[in-house]
Amino acid sequence: MNTEDRRSGRSRRAFFKSTAALAAATGAGLVAGPAGQALAADPAVGGHADGSAIEPFWGVHQGGIATPPQRHVYFAAFDLSTSQRSDVAAILEAWTAAASRMSRGETAEPREAGLRTATSPTTEDSRPGYAAPPAPGAGGDTGEVMGMTPHRLTVTFGFGPSLFVKDGKDRYGLAARRPEALADLPPFPGDQLVETHSGGDLCVQACADDPQVAFHAVRQLARIASGSAQIRWAQTGFLPDVPPGQAARNLMGFKDGIMNPAPHQMDPFVWIGAGGPDWLRGGSYLVARRIRIALEHWDSMRVAFQEQVVGRHKLSGAPLGQNRESAPLDLDAKDQDGNPIIPENAHVRLSAAAANGGAVILRRGYSYNNGVDLTAERWPPWREGLEYDAGLLFLAFQQDPRTGFIRIFDKVSRFDMMNQFVTHVGSALFACPGGATPGEFIGQRLLEG
Amino acid sequence: MNTEDRRSGRSRRAFFKSTAALAAATGAGLVAGPAGQALAADPAVGGHADGSAIEPFWGVHQGGIATPPQRHVYFAAFDLSTSQRSDVAAILEAWTAAASRMSRGETAEPREAGLRTATSPTTEDSRPGYAAPPAPGAGGDTGEVMGMTPHRLTVTFGFGPSLFVKDGKDRYGLAARRPEALADLPPFPGDQLVETHSGGDLCVQACADDPQVAFHAVRQLARIASGSAQIRWAQTGFLPDVPPGQAARNLMGFKDGIMNPAPHQMDPFVWIGAGGPDWLRGGSYLVARRIRIALEHWDSMRVAFQEQVVGRHKLSGAPLGQNRESAPLDLDAKDQDGNPIIPENAHVRLSAAAANGGAVILRRGYSYNNGVDLTAERWPPWREGLEYDAGLLFLAFQQDPRTGFIRIFDKVSRFDMMNQFVTHVGSALFACPGGATPGEFIGQRLLEG
Repeated sequence: MNTEDRRSGRSRRAFFKSTAALAAATGAGLVAGPAGQALAADPAVGGHADGSAIEPFWGVHQGGIATPPQRHVYFAAFDLSTSQRSDVAAILEAWTAAASRMSRGETAEPREAGLRTATSPTTEDSRPGYAAPPAPGAGGDTGEVMGMTPHRLTVTFGFGPSLFVKDGKDRYGLAARRPEALADLPPFPGDQLVETHSGGDLCVQACADDPQVAFHAVRQLARIASGSAQIRWAQTGFLPDVPPGQAARNLMGFKDGIMNPAPHQMDPFVWIGAGGPDWLRGGSYLVARRIRIALEHWDSMRVAFQEQVVGRHKLSGAPLGQNRESAPLDLDAKDQDGNPIIPENAHVRLSAAAANGGAVILRRGYSYNNGVDLTAERWPPWREGLEYDAGLLFLAFQQDPRTGFIRIFDKVSRFDMMNQFVTHVGSALFACPGGATPGEFIGQRLLEG
Repeated sequence: MNTEDRRSGRSRRAFFKSTAALAAATGAGLVAGPAGQALAADPAVGGHADGSAIEPFWGVHQGGIATPPQRHVYFAAFDLSTSQRSDVAAILEAWTAAASRMSRGETAEPREAGLRTATSPTTEDSRPGYAAPPAPGAGGDTGEVMGMTPHRLTVTFGFGPSLFVKDGKDRYGLAARRPEALADLPPFPGDQLVETHSGGDLCVQACADDPQVAFHAVRQLARIASGSAQIRWAQTGFLPDVPPGQAARNLMGFKDGIMNPAPHQMDPFVWIGAGGPDWLRGGSYLVARRIRIALEHWDSMRVAFQEQVVGRHKLSGAPLGQNRESAPLDLDAKDQDGNPIIPENAHVRLSAAAANGGAVILRRGYSYNNGVDLTAERWPPWREGLEYDAGLLFLAFQQDPRTGFIRIFDKVSRFDMMNQFVTHVGSALFACPGGATPGEFIGQRLLEG
């Protein structure tokens, strides 16, 4: 799950800092926020302790990609049930408006369309419109984040291959505009994909430093789209609260996300530029994989063996034979007998840029934890029983999946020692359009183009 | 889900403050922690911003009951596979030692028995024992919280009815010591319990202000008990990060946990005293219910109707007709036509102490969010489809379930308007023994008595 290059953790943090500052700078003039509200992101990981930091919504790029990772994600894939392209456009227009509001800590819809109450007014609900008779039928914002701060909420939208062609049908007249790169991922060795937890016409990645804020955002969007789109699968995820300057550990106990693109690698490897279709410019491809980890099996291994599998020391995070997490990966290093110090089938070697023609992807994954459920191992002695349903919600952004995830995982899926401990049980690919300016909506250049 | 009395939210907070202070005072002399480490709980909800606050493990009561609620829970029920009572005692002895260590931010086992590495020593793993050859076979602490602070971890143990008698068998010679109150909960109207998500011989409630810390604790205990006990079901839960002084909202958007026992009510209603068996003295009964909420259905209701269902205003949390969250519940208040302002079948009325012969329980629940899954409604028009698998992991402590949860829920399950939106899909009852002093283990008075 590591895609390695020679950047250090410190550099990555610096990169995120500068990216956030850049995003704030490019986006600041575009933001139509309430007067006096701070709109620039707090570049400190985790944001303000009181959760009041706001990530910019409007800009060249969507939020939630270069944004410093928040602590929680609610990821949802949607299936469209409408047959009209105009309905799809209407959903994205309403979603854009709601997401921009919620990322500022406001209700999904303006108050007038939102929470109403017919009962005795209280001191707190005396503002105009609030105590008016209830709107007929459905309510507005569901209200579970009232009184809370936005916790750096970002909402990122993506389009799946099935938006363009589904079961051979061009439902929305978009088939001709499907980029070649936006095809279902090929099957990989070891895949045990569950169809009902894979794919989707649209996706919404809501990230925030609070789980209720992240879920609230998707819940509002699902409510707004109800009747035309429905959640197909969803998964919550989290990152541990580590001290500043440390990389978070995944559920295997190893530091993850140590290596990620350097600032100068974002344009060539993550953002889609002039080489892509106009509607995707400033955007990125998102690969989502739900990777279940056989934690019981992993935990029964000696740490020394785990380190051979990963190619790093467990405690320090340093590449094998080195001392510091930030030490560069030396794939040519040999021990006194001439054997490679980092094994040929270690995860860090097989996923390294140097081993994959320079392929670099931006990993932005989260651990997931769904309790326990029945599972059957696919290796001897083929045990069956209740095991942890936990692992990694792998989320990675790249300019082109064919030279990104597919290239890397083609090798990893065949040779990685880690494969006996992990199973890919869900998969999806989405094209995330570029950002929008106020008055536009995300995906407008495709849906109205 | 509210059990109401006349305590205000402010009073409850004050209560938790004083309870924590009391626990710290009574437990402080017993704690064998590293020198210079702060051992008293930080009474501020959420603890220190850097997660360094430690909740006392040793004391008259187990932690995780009167402890100010942490942000995350990993709750697991275990089934025992051993036939020997001595194995059960050995599990509890090892669990007690590991839990006390982890609550101080240490590895589950002492370092010598824990993480080892056979590869080149690094600056960080040069302490004695650490770079020693790996222990044969299984490793120690799985390491995913290395470098993290304890985030107020508490670990609470409980014994289910099936520890005493299972399928008619007295596996451990404990049947005669089963308290009468520790029987399977009776069936309630509307129950749709899933057997594989109910019951359990033992339970572990791990609460912390970080989800990785909470899961890590249970994972170590499961590893330690492996071969003799196995997780039967598990559920993660969370509370939103609300500003100080505010009650957290549940996924229905209403403030929850506003009312809870006052300090003087802990002894008569929560802690088991001289009236209970010796091994339970200082303990409490824990009712766990997984309550799925039909969020889509709920969200389609007018707020004014939701408020009638709950009996409180959504925005302020005040009882209907009142202004402040902390206003006392006036069940006799009538409107100008002589109708009760709080409806006869409102949730707050039916669950109020005044409506249940003074029954008071300590609710310590968490929202849960398992994404979406297929569900079939049990009300017209009996829709089927993908819906949120989310709701409330209801956890409530009481001196006696027969005069606590059972009495309250007997009424609530029959009359509460809220029942059309919630379904109890999991259920368990556990007797949580009193706390322990160093040298003792939790449950020792039962298992070695």
